[in-house]
Amino acid sequence: MTPLSAPLAISLGDPAGIGPEVILGAWARLRAERRAPPAFVVGGPELLRRVAETVGIDCPIVPIAEPAEALFASAAGLPVLAGLDGMSSPGRPHVDGARLALASLQWGAKFALSGVAMGLVTAPVSKGALAAIGWDYPGQTEFLADACGRPYRDAVMMLAGPSLRTVPLTVHVALAEVPGLISAELIVHKSRIVAAGLRRDFGVLQPRLAIAALNPHAGEGGKFGDEEARIIAPAIAALQAEGIDAVGPVPGDALFTPRARAGYDAALCMYHDQALIPLKALEFDEGVNVTLGLPIIRSSPDHGTAYDIAGQGKADPGAMAAAIVMAAEMAAARASASA
Amino acid sequence: MTPLSAPLAISLGDPAGIGPEVILGAWARLRAERRAPPAFVVGGPELLRRVAETVGIDCPIVPIAEPAEALFASAAGLPVLAGLDGMSSPGRPHVDGARLALASLQWGAKFALSGVAMGLVTAPVSKGALAAIGWDYPGQTEFLADACGRPYRDAVMMLAGPSLRTVPLTVHVALAEVPGLISAELIVHKSRIVAAGLRRDFGVLQPRLAIAALNPHAGEGGKFGDEEARIIAPAIAALQAEGIDAVGPVPGDALFTPRARAGYDAALCMYHDQALIPLKALEFDEGVNVTLGLPIIRSSPDHGTAYDIAGQGKADPGAMAAAIVMAAEMAAARASASA
Repeated sequence: MTPLSAPLAISLGDPAGIGPEVILGAWARLRAERRAPPAFVVGGPELLRRVAETVGIDCPIVPIAEPAEALFASAAGLPVLAGLDGMSSPGRPHVDGARLALASLQWGAKFALSGVAMGLVTAPVSKGALAAIGWDYPGQTEFLADACGRPYRDAVMMLAGPSLRTVPLTVHVALAEVPGLISAELIVHKSRIVAAGLRRDFGVLQPRLAIAALNPHAGEGGKFGDEEARIIAPAIAALQAEGIDAVGPVPGDALFTPRARAGYDAALCMYHDQALIPLKALEFDEGVNVTLGLPIIRSSPDHGTAYDIAGQGKADPGAMAAAIVMAAEMAAARASASA
Repeated sequence: MTPLSAPLAISLGDPAGIGPEVILGAWARLRAERRAPPAFVVGGPELLRRVAETVGIDCPIVPIAEPAEALFASAAGLPVLAGLDGMSSPGRPHVDGARLALASLQWGAKFALSGVAMGLVTAPVSKGALAAIGWDYPGQTEFLADACGRPYRDAVMMLAGPSLRTVPLTVHVALAEVPGLISAELIVHKSRIVAAGLRRDFGVLQPRLAIAALNPHAGEGGKFGDEEARIIAPAIAALQAEGIDAVGPVPGDALFTPRARAGYDAALCMYHDQALIPLKALEFDEGVNVTLGLPIIRSSPDHGTAYDIAGQGKADPGAMAAAIVMAAEMAAARASASA
């Protein structure tokens, strides 16, 4: 892997959720396995020290004054940017915690945009807790699109595990609304971003995309649903015409068999569960949420704040560890592509 | 396993499809592993002999005159009921083949209903080919419901693999129609049949059912979709009130993680792909389609006629082998439950 010229930034997430403990757990694991890339947490040295103590994670905190120090401090423990800190009560969201989470995210985005950080890994926040302090984004992804000066629709969520990458075309909408929301234009727009992202950040020179059908058996020739012929097939033809290797519409249940998975680099799915069910069934503990289409590299573990188990040492740090490693690999791929 | 007092019947399926070769391949495999239960194919001794030769499967055909002979003939090869036969050209469906497939299915159903066979394993047919001879059922399952004198809605399809069983509430309908088709009454009706089937045919004394949500994140408290609160939760409450162990609505993507799967005996899903995606992703080669709610035991491999690869020896017999073994286990469980 190409060595990184700048560290990764990791935002704290909601301090009342499992964010801090999965960051600590992930770092302890990556250090033990000698796989920790240069990285630092954006704020919270004292908070993280206390969480490590409470939860019983052996992970020294190394306060740093500048992001660049993380390039050399990672070996000694978890580098954490000093100057931004707070307290937390696990499981009890509080406006102070929401403010800390937001500041950590804002600074992380700035570091990534300016190149002071090679990318940003975000720990989970609570939209509800952030709404209480006036934040009105649907999620961190849209916040980051805005921070990058891009429209929301350019920020494409990809779920990535060791053997499968999926992209939901529609995300947090009622299933009943899905058929009305899919369009050839949207499929082409997102597929272009996915293909470009796979080339730039994953080292996939000729990305192969598989596009899912909406209906069972792809509608069986129009017998149950015509979105395949009316919307999805024309989108695939348009993608092929511009040189993007796209196949489909593939019936949802045929798309994730071991043989099918070997044939593509990413599957574009029509709705949330079509993309998330196979990913969580196959690689639950290593599913990483990657944002494509923005100038910055961004990954996050594919889970929420999990207030109900926060502070109890029950949270699995696997997804956070995978998110950190994936961001580092993406940064290395991008650096080597532009070298 | 309780020894079977009668053999299983296996219908031929469309002779131009992969049915005959997966029956032969499954039987050769089960015999080699000494796991072949007493069973016989309903017709086609000459046809099967030729397919075995063409495809290169070493499986002796043992023509029998009566189903009961299969109890003793299984050791020598594949018992096949004589008196019903035909020719086939792999990959080329023909009305003669459709008539043979239908006769095999009809006789198989009669044997199972009368108790001459302990259950029926069906190889795949083509609805198109059967429609050409006047058959107008949506599929074999509905045909069998009719043959058993039961309404279609009592025949409940369950997909079963080694580590997962799923039941789609709606099946071959456009995704856009799904929200309008789910009802508390339908959920309760199917769940009762699934619970009874697990008790009777799977030896699960206290079946635990997990009921899927329709919308992503179960609608997140009504933010995107209200079917969970309006339809699914009341159905679960009704099931619990009558003593059926049902939980949910569980968000689709949370339902199939390894930890979640360990907590239930069957997952009731709202639509086709929600049930089929995880099953085919996790246990593609061993997914068995089981029909619950009928007086007869019925299983089938979860694949179609696959005309495009028929006669080439490419078809994987794993699902057919799993369907045969599962029918035998169900028959044994039912016999021991009623003993």
